[in-house]
Formats: sequence, C-alpha cells, structure tokens
Amino acid sequence: MVMLSNGKASHQNDGLIIGRFQPFHRGHLEVIRSIASELDHIIICIGSAQQSHTVNNPFTAGERYQMISETLRDESIPYYLVPIEDLNRYNVWVAHVVSMVPPFGRVYSNNPLTRRLFSEAGYEVRSAPLFNRYMYSGTEVRRRMVSGDEWESLVPEPVVRVVKDIDGEDRLRDLAEEV
Amino acid sequence: MVMLSNGKASHQNDGLIIGRFQPFHRGHLEVIRSIASELDHIIICIGSAQQSHTVNNPFTAGERYQMISETLRDESIPYYLVPIEDLNRYNVWVAHVVSMVPPFGRVYSNNPLTRRLFSEAGYEVRSAPLFNRYMYSGTEVRRRMVSGDEWESLVPEPVVRVVKDIDGEDRLRDLAEEV
Amino acid sequence: MVMLSNGKASHQNDGLIIGRFQPFHRGHLEVIRSIASELDHIIICIGSAQQSHTVNNPFTAGERYQMISETLRDESIPYYLVPIEDLNRYNVWVAHVVSMVPPFGRVYSNNPLTRRLFSEAGYEVRSAPLFNRYMYSGTEVRRRMVSGDEWESLVPEPVVRVVKDIDGEDRLRDLAEEV
Amino acid sequence: MVMLSNGKASHQNDGLIIGRFQPFHRGHLEVIRSIASELDHIIICIGSAQQSHTVNNPFTAGERYQMISETLRDESIPYYLVPIEDLNRYNVWVAHVVSMVPPFGRVYSNNPLTRRLFSEAGYEVRSAPLFNRYMYSGTEVRRRMVSGDEWESLVPEPVVRVVKDIDGEDRLRDLAEEV
Amino acid sequence: MVMLSNGKASHQNDGLIIGRFQPFHRGHLEVIRSIASELDHIIICIGSAQQSHTVNNPFTAGERYQMISETLRDESIPYYLVPIEDLNRYNVWVAHVVSMVPPFGRVYSNNPLTRRLFSEAGYEVRSAPLFNRYMYSGTEVRRRMVSGDEWESLVPEPVVRVVKDIDGEDRLRDLAEEV
Amino acid sequence: MVMLSNGKASHQNDGLIIGRFQPFHRGHLEVIRSIASELDHIIICIGSAQQSHTVNNPFTAGERYQMISETLRDESIPYYLVPIEDLNRYNVWVAHVVSMVPPFGRVYSNNPLTRRLFSEAGYEVRSAPLFNRYMYSGTEVRRRMVSGDEWESLVPEPVVRVVKDIDGEDRLRDLAEEV
Repeated sequence: MVMLSNGKASHQNDGLIIGRFQPFHRGHLEVIRSIASELDHIIICIGSAQQSHTVNNPFTAGERYQMISETLRDESIPYYLVPIEDLNRYNVWVAHVVSMVPPFGRVYSNNPLTRRLFSEAGYEVRSAPLFNRYMYSGTEVRRRMVSGDEWESLVPEPVVRVVKDIDGEDRLRDLAEEV
Repeated sequence: MVMLSNGKASHQNDGLIIGRFQPFHRGHLEVIRSIASELDHIIICIGSAQQSHTVNNPFTAGERYQMISETLRDESIPYYLVPIEDLNRYNVWVAHVVSMVPPFGRVYSNNPLTRRLFSEAGYEVRSAPLFNRYMYSGTEVRRRMVSGDEWESLVPEPVVRVVKDIDGEDRLRDLAEEV
Repeated sequence: MVMLSNGKASHQNDGLIIGRFQPFHRGHLEVIRSIASELDHIIICIGSAQQSHTVNNPFTAGERYQMISETLRDESIPYYLVPIEDLNRYNVWVAHVVSMVPPFGRVYSNNPLTRRLFSEAGYEVRSAPLFNRYMYSGTEVRRRMVSGDEWESLVPEPVVRVVKDIDGEDRLRDLAEEV
Repeated sequence: MVMLSNGKASHQNDGLIIGRFQPFHRGHLEVIRSIASELDHIIICIGSAQQSHTVNNPFTAGERYQMISETLRDESIPYYLVPIEDLNRYNVWVAHVVSMVPPFGRVYSNNPLTRRLFSEAGYEVRSAPLFNRYMYSGTEVRRRMVSGDEWESLVPEPVVRVVKDIDGEDRLRDLAEEV
Repeated sequence: MVMLSNGKASHQNDGLIIGRFQPFHRGHLEVIRSIASELDHIIICIGSAQQSHTVNNPFTAGERYQMISETLRDESIPYYLVPIEDLNRYNVWVAHVVSMVPPFGRVYSNNPLTRRLFSEAGYEVRSAPLFNRYMYSGTEVRRRMVSGDEWESLVPEPVVRVVKDIDGEDRLRDLAEEV
Repeated sequence: MVMLSNGKASHQNDGLIIGRFQPFHRGHLEVIRSIASELDHIIICIGSAQQSHTVNNPFTAGERYQMISETLRDESIPYYLVPIEDLNRYNVWVAHVVSMVPPFGRVYSNNPLTRRLFSEAGYEVRSAPLFNRYMYSGTEVRRRMVSGDEWESLVPEPVVRVVKDIDGEDRLRDLAEEV
C-alpha cells in the first residue's frame, strides 16, 4: 500500500494468490517467497474452504490455515490468510473473493479459470512461478500418504507436525479405502 | 499450544472470539488485549462474513479483515483472523466454525446463542470483559456515522483510515436514506 | 390405502399434517387422535426441521421426532413421521413436501399459507380441530419454560422426559437471556 | 446499442430498471414509458423472482412476467424482461445481475441499496421518476385487494386480466387471513 | 391463449422449450421456427442460467439472452425468453419452472429427464424436431471455437456478433487450456 | 435406551444406519434384522433425501420411506425412519445427522467416509454385515429394471408393490434412455 496524492491508498503492489493447499507443500512455499519479493502484501486465499474429508480434499480449512500460518511464522513476509468458500457461480466469483479480502491490485495464478475471471474483471494477472511441479504437488503428496511412501520431505516441517497431530495419514488412508 | 507427553498438542490455552466487527472499535480492541494475556493464541472470527451493505452490517468481510489486521499490526498478540460465513442452521454452527479455524479449547462470548451452542458441544465458555459498552458499541459508531457526529475517537486510528479509504461514511449514509 | 380396480392404490384416506412441534403438546396430540379416526394413515411432518436453538424454535428435529414417537408409542394410530426442511421458496413447497413423504390425498391445516399452497395444487384441505388453543400452544409452553412456571401439564408425559433429558428448560432460558 | 469505431458495441444508452412488480401498476408503466424515451433498450428486471405467496410478494415471477409482457405488447418500447432471483449477498449482487441480462450502461433506481451497489461498481445511476407514488404503489394495490376495495384502476388493463385469471384476489385474501 | 366459456384463459397452445443454448445455433433456430407454427406463444427457457465460464457452459445467461433476442428480432414469432437457474432437486424442478414462466400447456424436449419430469406432472410432452444434429450442436460449435475452425456458419449471424463483442472465442480457448 | 442412576437416558444400545435405499432390497432387510438383534432401537436414515429421478437415484425420499415402512410393518423391530438431505460439507455432516434423529450411540456403516466422519466425532462405528452383496445391491436391482430382467426376487414383496404403483420401472427406463 502506498499513499496517493489524493490521500487514498493504492494497492497496485498488493497481490493475491489462491490455492486449495491440500496440503501446503514446499512448492507453495517457494511461490509465496518468490512473489512476496515483488509485493508489499500478499493475500493467500485458501480455496474450496468448505471442503474436507475427501481423497482430493482431505483437510479442513482450519487445518490448512494452521499449516500455512505455522510455516510462515518465521518468514518475514507480510501476508493475510483468508479461507474462501466456493459459490459455484463463476460469474460472481471475483466479486465474492474481492468482498472477503483486503484490497489488492494483482493476481498470481496458473489456473485458466481463475486467470480468465480476474482478467475479465480488469485485474492484472501474472503466472505463478513453478518449482519442480511433478514432485511438489498436492496430488503427489496425497498419493504418497495413501501408499505409505515418504512424503514428509515434500512439505515444510510445521506441516508434518500438523498432519501428525490430526492423524492426517490415517484419515486419508481410510477415505481412499475401496468399498 | 503445549506438547503433551503423548506427543499431541494441547490447545487448552488457545481461545476463540467471534464478532461481527461492524466496525472494529476500541471496545473490541480492549477485549482482545485483555483475553490475549490469558492465552497462547487468540482466534478472531469475523462473523456474518457474507453480509455487507446494510445499515447494520455496512462493511464487507475484507474491509473488516483489513481494519483488524492493521490495528493489531503493532500489538504483540499472536492471533489468527478468520472470516466465517453464516450457515443459518444453528445445530451445525459449532462444527462449521471448528472446521474453519485452527484448534482451540476455550470460547469467549457474551452472546447467549454462541455461549449455549459451544457449551452444549463441550467447550469451556467464558464471558468477554466489557469496556464502556454503551459508547464502545458498533451500534453507536454506526449511529454517529449516519448522523454526522464525531465517531473517530471510538475506533482505533487504523480503522479511521480504512473507513475513509472506502468512503465508508458515505456508504452508510446512503444506505440509511429514507425511501 | 385401498386397492382400486385398476390395481393402483388410492390414497384418499391418507392424510397429512404439518407442524413445528416446538414442543409437541397435548393440543397436537388431540388433533392427531381426532383426525386419525377419519384416516387410514396419518403423515406427521416436522416442519422447519433445520431450525433449533432459538427462542421460538428451541428443539432440533431429532428431539421433536423423539417427543412425538415416544408419545405415540402406545396409541394405536398408524402414522409416518417425517422431518421437512424449509426451502424458502413457496412456489415449490408442495412439490418438496410431496417428494419427502408417502402418498396422501388430504391435508389438515389452519395455516393460511399451507392451506393456500396445497389448495392451489389440487389437494383437499381441511381445518385441524383446535383444543383449548390458548393454553395448548407452543408459545405458551415456551413462555412458561422461560419464566419457570409449571408447563409439564401442557405436554404429554414422554415429552417431559425428553425435555428433561436434554436440559431443554436450561437451553431455552439461556437463549432467552437479555444481552 | 451503437457501434464504436473499434467495432465493439457501446451500451451507454441501454438502461436497466429493477422492481418486484407485486403487481405491475400504472406507476411502473409511466416510469418505463418515461425512461424508454432516453434509451435504445430498457432491461426490466423482475426482482425477488423466487418469492411468491406471501402478503407482500403474492405473485410468482411467471405471473409478473405475464403482467408486464401483456401490458407492453402494444407499446413501441424495445425491452428485455428478466426475472432475477435474490442471492442475499449484496457484495455479489451487481455481478449476479450483470451475468443475467444483456449489456447496459445505466441504472434507474430510487432504492438506496440498489443505487449504492451499482454506483460502487462504477455504473451511472439515475433516479426513476415517480408518478403519484402514494396511489400508484404495490402496497396500496395489495391493500385494496385484501380489503375488497376497487384496485383495478391502479393497474394496466392486462394486469387485471392476469390477476382474475389466477384468482389473485382470493390468493391474497387467503394469505392475509388472521390465524 | 384462447378464452374459454368460463372466462378463464386456456394455454393448451402455449408451448415451452428448454435449452442451455451454449451457444444458440441454427439447429435451435430451426426447432423454434418449426414448433412456433403449432403454437400461440413459445416460452424459451435458458437453462442452467447460473452457469458460465466453463468449457461446456462458456456463456452467461445474459449473453445467451442477447444471442436469442437479437436473432429472433426479425422473426414474427411471439415468444417469451426466461433464464432459469438450476435447483439441483429434480422433484421440485417442474414447480420451479412453472413458477418462473407464463402459463403453458405443452413441453417440447428430447431430454429424457425433462420429458419424464413434465410427463409425471401431467403435461403433454412432444419431441423437438432435430435438424442436422451432428453439425448443429453446441458441442460441435464449442469444439470448433477452441480449435480455431470455422464455426460462424453454424450459428445465426447475430450470435456471431455477440460472441465477437464479448471476445467469446478467446474466453473459450483460455478455459480449455491445459494446466 | 436405559435409565442411568443419574436419571438421564443412555443410548449406547441405540444404533444408526444410513443408506440411499435406491431401492430398498433384501440385503438391506437382512442387515437391519441382523443388527436389530443387538440394539434397543435402530435409526434408519434415508440418505441423499433430496435426490430422485436420476439413473442412480431414481426414487424420491417419500417413495423410499414407503418401501421401508411397508416392509418393516410385520417385523417386530423398534425403528425410527428419517430422511436426511445432503449438505455437501462433510465437516458438518455428523452434526447435521445428529440434529435430525433421536439419540444414538453407535453407527453401522461400510462406507469409508461415513465411518471416518463418525469415528472422528467419537462415535463407536461397526461394520454392517453383508449378504450376497453382488446380487443384493441397488446397482444390480436398477440394472435389471432398466434391461427388463427379473428384479422382483431381489427386493421384499412390499417394495415390488410400491415400484409398480409409481410406475417405477418405466421411470427408470425413461431416465436411462440414450439421448
């Protein structure tokens, strides 16, 4: 935020990023570190906040909030963390997000729908840099949790603690069970 | 959060407070300062997050998020800030809040419904201390904004800046207009 | 239900009654006994099923289900008990109710909206007989619970048991508290 | 709509008006005639489309659609008629309306909320001219229907026909009945 | 509509057709022309009105409304155009549609669900005539838009103008992008 | 239900089972008979109550209610029958079910999601015994209905009567039609 000569704040350098963070992994952390360097503030939206307890969305918004805030505790990044529920009406999606977060001027996303919606609404949209996307991906972390493979190195250390504390591996394995 | 001997975290000293914060005023700030002294973390829930643009709920969740986070920037209070949408089904309300926030063990509220719901769900419920509740109240701040009286001294200074930045007084006055 | 010559069942003598039953009282019981005598089956709908924990709707649908089924256990009335959630779109209300209950041919109600909606949809609508409506009313029972007056004689004995078992008087008194 | 030099259409002279039209009356018709003279097209939104069968909103969106289209049949006004359901989230209301109607550049309204919302979204908002507002009002028409007074002169002749055809007076009287 | 001897209107010759019109194409136009010849009025419902910005439903209800009304401007077909939002409860779907549109007596559809629902509700259901259904299909038009093939000849000329005006091809191509 | 020494009722021997019952078949009946022997009361929840008229969920909640209650009429099983609508938020699902039914202490389910959700909420969860699960399955019954094969022997006799009475085979065949 910078003060304009008319006394209003400009939010050109406040940026927004949306993810489901199922769970928050090292790729997410690298993206946030990278774009934070270009920004005054970064607004991190936890998307599909109402979802949990499915194979693709195992963790609640509260659990994801905890993963992210404990990871960022020791980073010197000025951020806002906001869970956003789906409305399932894409034509009001941007207005919904805007109403839930502090002001911003730029959106970072690689998702075609998110990019298109914010772009039609007049926002500057930039790509989010990717870091080893095949390994650092929520799909891969969840796959390893289900199959019992080592997944801990793919996520920040505080995320390991949160997952253990809620018995997250057991939950995911139970949900993935064949009926 | 403290580590238990079984390796799990205990959240007995993590507390939750819910308000609509329309707008965030000095009474809210005093409550938060006061209960923060008894807690490891304080989870501040912005209730009725989907509401805005009415005489009783003029500000969006994002605007309220900004008011609170800018006010608390210089306080040394470890807090989580979470907007919570209404579900309008009180029998699932506690489960909804729990799913949206980091873990907590205690709730501070003077609202009979909130107190009863968390208490039936087994949470420890404490009263929130009140500070000059007739002056430091959202109703009084909004009344003054509509009538053009001095309201700025009732809210923390950053809230004044946010309200000015969004033309909040004009919005409230427009909404209060007789048809 | 009677078998028609075309092999289909007729449901002219199956009747439907809707109430909120907050709580189920002796007036309700008398109505049900009275109309049951004209019917093969009686479908009892627990309306506003999603509501609970307010001064006017203190009890959950499950608690109301229990009150009614325990009261009717010893009556020889063939009944179906069905909780119905509000949709808040009156033009689809009849279709919603119809989809949730076994077939029926007649509706008993004194509520103008219910009567009009079913009547526009082609159903036979009859008035429900009233029994001492000033005393046997949900409003009166709840008023007595809040003020600590004797209410037990206004409801069937199993309802007293259910209310005691869930600490219903305390709940209602807590909810009615002035803030 | 006019063609701009860049080949895109401009919709500066396409205007939008929102009403509940419970029922459509002569005041509505005069407003539409009056603003139509300033416009290429007029988009008429039937608000609260999902509501019906209450004392304040007795008619369905379809019935209101029929009232308006039959009245405007013989007017040489280029109009679009669009029922709009409430979302009950004012911060996405403008985006919702925009997604449901052809493009427009100007809004006519005397409702403070509607005016404020479209104005914050950057639309030009004008007042709708009022014609004998105490007599030509939905409230007055409904009051007369309930009490059995003459109401027919307050509405266009096709509206009388639609109301008679659906037994609208009976419906309103039934709904207004004391319980 | 014809007047019956009892003074009520009959709507046996008013017909309803529902489509998603993503986008409106020449096949749709031919169906409408064809059934209009059997009808007094034709009610055209824009289904799934709340959907937009997906690969299968790229256009908003407002954009589809504009496509259809501009195409039909020069046809002498008496029609009503009504966007209908999904309720995702099929047992109230017919009641929902009926509440949103002027009265009708007949439904034209080839969709098994639509046919079955209206038929169970007692409506006369007829098949809609198909015109070169492999070429004149929304799927084919969207496929061509994405792949850059010629699609303009498959839709009426005003639809081409609307799609160009909203950059519809770009939108669809963006949405179809691989992540 | 047994009375505890503190005067409260214990519901350790009241059990809950959830199914979609599309339709109710002999496998369901065997499960209910089997677990009823271990229980004081059995609460039978009709899940996805708002769904009907699709190939996988052809029957309304009311039709399923009728199938089950007519089948159980001659069994000496103390049961409660409760339709439950989906909320599509799994983190409040248990609270939703609990609010809709009489008290219970144990859940019988083979569905991984149901098992996990009730187990996280502290309920005792047991497996439901399976009886010839390849033949006695809703999928198989519906497959036979669509293809015209013999299905009547897979369901209790009263279910055959209900399906015939509502022309259920025709409905399912119509819905399964290729477009």
